[in-house]
Amino acid sequence: MADLAPERIARLEGDRVVFLDQRRLPDEEVDLECRTAAEVAEAIRTLAVRGAPAIGVAAAYGYALAAQQREDLDAAYRVLAESRPTAVNLVWALDEMRPDPTRERARGIHAEEVERCKRMAAHAAELFGPGTRALTHCNAGGLATGGYGSAVGALRAAFERDLLAHVWVDETRPLLQGARLTAWELEAVGIPHAVIADSAAASLMARGEVDCVVTGADRIAANGDTANKIGTYSLAVLARHHGLPLYVVAPTSTVDPATPTGASIPIEERDGAEITERFAARNPAFDVTPAELIAAIVTEDGVHRAPYAF
Amino acid sequence: MADLAPERIARLEGDRVVFLDQRRLPDEEVDLECRTAAEVAEAIRTLAVRGAPAIGVAAAYGYALAAQQREDLDAAYRVLAESRPTAVNLVWALDEMRPDPTRERARGIHAEEVERCKRMAAHAAELFGPGTRALTHCNAGGLATGGYGSAVGALRAAFERDLLAHVWVDETRPLLQGARLTAWELEAVGIPHAVIADSAAASLMARGEVDCVVTGADRIAANGDTANKIGTYSLAVLARHHGLPLYVVAPTSTVDPATPTGASIPIEERDGAEITERFAARNPAFDVTPAELIAAIVTEDGVHRAPYAF
Repeated sequence: MADLAPERIARLEGDRVVFLDQRRLPDEEVDLECRTAAEVAEAIRTLAVRGAPAIGVAAAYGYALAAQQREDLDAAYRVLAESRPTAVNLVWALDEMRPDPTRERARGIHAEEVERCKRMAAHAAELFGPGTRALTHCNAGGLATGGYGSAVGALRAAFERDLLAHVWVDETRPLLQGARLTAWELEAVGIPHAVIADSAAASLMARGEVDCVVTGADRIAANGDTANKIGTYSLAVLARHHGLPLYVVAPTSTVDPATPTGASIPIEERDGAEITERFAARNPAFDVTPAELIAAIVTEDGVHRAPYAF
Repeated sequence: MADLAPERIARLEGDRVVFLDQRRLPDEEVDLECRTAAEVAEAIRTLAVRGAPAIGVAAAYGYALAAQQREDLDAAYRVLAESRPTAVNLVWALDEMRPDPTRERARGIHAEEVERCKRMAAHAAELFGPGTRALTHCNAGGLATGGYGSAVGALRAAFERDLLAHVWVDETRPLLQGARLTAWELEAVGIPHAVIADSAAASLMARGEVDCVVTGADRIAANGDTANKIGTYSLAVLARHHGLPLYVVAPTSTVDPATPTGASIPIEERDGAEITERFAARNPAFDVTPAELIAAIVTEDGVHRAPYAF
């Protein structure tokens, strides 16, 4: 049984930040220990800890560690803020930490993130009818949020209310976060599911085997345009074509009021070697889904619909 | 430099049929030798030789081998016809062989298949404007057709006419025929290309980096509905949403007049272990693209548009 307790996913313990190393799941459950802000930034950059809310939590712990070890806090801020470009939670968490760079504040950010997941999950569950067969992409689960999960949290809440029949899990190439992490989490909580190749989603929709698409978000622009794992935009177009709703479930820490539309969200291009070491490859890690393709955005505040005012 | 000569891909040599084992490409170029029709059927079933026209050629060689070895020809027909369910070329080639089960007829079918590729490629190239950036899925190349290629043949003909700037190659999960085979073939003929995760195609379309989608076909119904590698239907919906044409390039041996629409095409469900050995998985190997999402179907006869009359 997978252990999804928040302190298992990330914690500050003595002079180090400890993460469950997500790169090695589900084969091994191994801790990664970081002793400086730079080591935490490296853990974020190399995806040992990933998911927009979880990297905000990680950055908060890294900043608290830097303060405790009397590191240069401006340098710690910079190295952590620059570890990934797309998620806005990194900078959000660091700005929360700056006036109060303590372990207690970092733990508070972590606890609030998990609490927000449970609230948004309760809101999202109201969007599910009985017997829903949902499709999800990547991992917007406990691992991605520091506990419980955003999109996976919504699935858990719907399942507890007896509204969820089945989950299709996009394997999510190139790094297989769906097959490796989401399936592991759903297995742990006993939700029926099957992993599919990402390109099979359209076919299942055409056969009437999908009722809705549920994803998390890495950054939400003020108008509702949403950046998330590459492939989310593809699902949005496919869902629209098949008359299915796409629900985005994400904490308000993911909303960036300073970003007016998706056009100004920076998209990380990762190493082509994640796809193939042999040939030239192009590897955008995220895409942007226009607000008009999203049926609802669920935050801890409730269910938002266009025109968005978060 | 990859060797794409037709006789390298499949040939009848003495008492055996020899295939270039496509499962081991691009890491190794290894021959697979089959001494009975049942062994040829096994090579088809396990994807050592794959691609609708190529498995028709393989079945023809397998049947000629059975005749030469005095095997039971009805049994040989059955084991070969049943080795894969979706492509219609298997049965087509076997029906061609029945009245003349000789090595010469099998070699004739092979040569005709390659000749058809060159003719359809010439027709398809007329659909390309200067500087085209095409996107392709799976491998409809020389390997899939016994030589030259259908969709890849069209790309080669367009490139020779200086009309093709770049090819985006869907890696094509779960078996990575795009990353393993199509990239290997394009490399061999010097066509600029990059491999992408299947789910990144929509994002490249939205950024205006794709001009058309070109694929092969495993079976084409009388109304133009086309079964092809899982993910083709997804590309068709995405192309339509972005106002891009989808061109299907396939020999007339792929058209099944006895199948009125896509609804009656059998879709192979392969072992979930191709996706993941760890979790439950669903693995449809093909999908059906409705004729209304296809801009043109190119056969050796020319460019067909709806309403289709092949």
